[in-house]
Amino acid sequence: MINKVKSAVEKYNMLEMNDSVTVGLSGGADSVALLYAMLELKSCYNLNIQAVHINHQLRGAESDRDEDFCRSLCKRLNIPFFCKKIDVAAHMKQYGTSCEESARILRYQAFDEYSDGGKIATAHTLSDNAETIIHNLARGTGLKGLTGIPPVRENIIRPLILAERDEVEAYLKDKSQDFVTDCTNLTDDYTRNKIRHHVIPQLKKINPSFFKTIASDISVLQLEESFIAQASDEAYKKCLVSENRLENLKGYHKAIRNRCIAAFLNNHGLRYSSDRIEAVDSILLHDGKINISQNVYIISEKGILFIEYVNEKIECSSFEMPLAIGKNSICGKKFCDVQIILNENCVKTQFINTNLANSALDYDKIIGVPVIRSRKPGDKI
Amino acid sequence: MINKVKSAVEKYNMLEMNDSVTVGLSGGADSVALLYAMLELKSCYNLNIQAVHINHQLRGAESDRDEDFCRSLCKRLNIPFFCKKIDVAAHMKQYGTSCEESARILRYQAFDEYSDGGKIATAHTLSDNAETIIHNLARGTGLKGLTGIPPVRENIIRPLILAERDEVEAYLKDKSQDFVTDCTNLTDDYTRNKIRHHVIPQLKKINPSFFKTIASDISVLQLEESFIAQASDEAYKKCLVSENRLENLKGYHKAIRNRCIAAFLNNHGLRYSSDRIEAVDSILLHDGKINISQNVYIISEKGILFIEYVNEKIECSSFEMPLAIGKNSICGKKFCDVQIILNENCVKTQFINTNLANSALDYDKIIGVPVIRSRKPGDKI
Repeated sequence: MINKVKSAVEKYNMLEMNDSVTVGLSGGADSVALLYAMLELKSCYNLNIQAVHINHQLRGAESDRDEDFCRSLCKRLNIPFFCKKIDVAAHMKQYGTSCEESARILRYQAFDEYSDGGKIATAHTLSDNAETIIHNLARGTGLKGLTGIPPVRENIIRPLILAERDEVEAYLKDKSQDFVTDCTNLTDDYTRNKIRHHVIPQLKKINPSFFKTIASDISVLQLEESFIAQASDEAYKKCLVSENRLENLKGYHKAIRNRCIAAFLNNHGLRYSSDRIEAVDSILLHDGKINISQNVYIISEKGILFIEYVNEKIECSSFEMPLAIGKNSICGKKFCDVQIILNENCVKTQFINTNLANSALDYDKIIGVPVIRSRKPGDKI
Repeated sequence: MINKVKSAVEKYNMLEMNDSVTVGLSGGADSVALLYAMLELKSCYNLNIQAVHINHQLRGAESDRDEDFCRSLCKRLNIPFFCKKIDVAAHMKQYGTSCEESARILRYQAFDEYSDGGKIATAHTLSDNAETIIHNLARGTGLKGLTGIPPVRENIIRPLILAERDEVEAYLKDKSQDFVTDCTNLTDDYTRNKIRHHVIPQLKKINPSFFKTIASDISVLQLEESFIAQASDEAYKKCLVSENRLENLKGYHKAIRNRCIAAFLNNHGLRYSSDRIEAVDSILLHDGKINISQNVYIISEKGILFIEYVNEKIECSSFEMPLAIGKNSICGKKFCDVQIILNENCVKTQFINTNLANSALDYDKIIGVPVIRSRKPGDKI
């Protein structure tokens, strides 16, 4: 295992000489092994190592047992030890987040507090990473999601990211070092258990070297992701002529256009889905206007993309009128344009415009007279 | 299902007006549904449709039953029908390929023969595609492998590529059309069965819309793959100053360098693995020479990469001599340079050079006197 830690540290430039490293120590196998591994690298990098244990106070006496275990271990290894008690339930109540999410946020807040700008080492393994990737694939992902847990993110490092769970346990066995049930089992939710206990064993039957293989897959995908991210960042910077305006994006490859559109929406606090990106890309190419949220429009004119914030509202509280072919004036302020388009029972004419301001109805299925009216209680869209 | 077929046909420009389409018809649910779907699109594109059934002659009477089923179906639907009997066993014997591989090769040869340059439609579904992607992930893949089965490859089209297996069966049920056990079960090998029956059901438990999700994942990954493929093709063309020489590759992003190195090796009929690409990339950056196969070297001088074919062989059939520190002359023609390097128990000095001409041994573990000698029967590397 230690060689995989050394490989990861080198490959991702995790450590520099004289680094201070705060190890997140739960007392579970992974984090205990991480602490030992950091000790093995201590002299080489002249590291300053300390450990922080987070007592989640979620499992009563067991939580306190874990805390005691970590305290004793650090005392024996002569590592400065800190313990932070966090109130997950209170955080959940205040922010409406899930138990796992609250625990995660408070955990990293505590690590930040004790690390004082130094490195924070967490014990994510290759096994965790494989599970995350399969989780992302199942729940929907782009290329980035297939690169899994970032080995380094700001001052957080994951030195076990190339090591398998089995190797971690063998490493500790070799040192006759025991461990407690890992409190990261907090994240052992329904989904992760399914992947760990049902999906991964099947993939290991298909390929006994599955973990080695996926580590290599991840390596390649990380590279390609970093290339696309760099290319789209460059394109974005070139096209962003003002905070609110993207010019010349039209000439780029669709993959780059889509990443830039996502960044543009995201930077304006606007939600994006693959459908929305597709719709914006379509108006980028052909010009048009999309209502993004209540009073926000994204507009493309001559291939220039910009966002318009409209404060004006239609000032007529309630109306109802039959729809006629052609322009229907709504309270004299807006128009609804009605056309009948022939359906030739042909794919070519079945194209549904993804521009959100357009709707298509099947004329044959309309009974009675269609009306346009303001929203009433009970209406659903 | 038919809407997903129409979407796929549009999205991937599968059909043009007046196309001739040869449907690969096994008699299984997928291919029967494909035939019906093509008939539904016939008038829109003015298609000329025919069906080809491949009798693999592997399942005796059952093979003939399938052939009869397809013939009757086409007669009833008034579709020109052709049947080709193929000898999978003979092909396997001649080329040493697996049963599935031989069947696949012969099948596409037959489709080619009957299509006469027109389109060939095969019945791969989104379900097949999801299985393929998971298979690739388990067995090792780059970004391309995660885009799965290509919807269009030359004149081969896969109109069912966005439809799920369940939707295919529902479509046929709706038409009261029965089908035989799909002979594509030939590819239902050990691996695919594991994925179909054990992995996918778990992923569907995690995300009931798994197939919808993976279709969207694939769409994004296809885009990004096409962008990187385009960027690396362009780089390769720019850098390839002669068949045997890549110049200025050093200045590109590592993702592009690696794809170009793979293409360079591949275009010279040389095998590549991720380790080999890494080794070549390393000499590209720092200059050096790698023995690629028996008498082929890849060399980098001042960042210019070229391949050297060496005919010279060391003309001494058998030798054995103790290794000494410094230069050891081998038959007066080659040298083996031996150094002792201190291992400071430090990652920085544990770097193993991936240049294939270098080897490192642990001095503490060598018992007796190390010798260098020519290959003897029974030697393994």
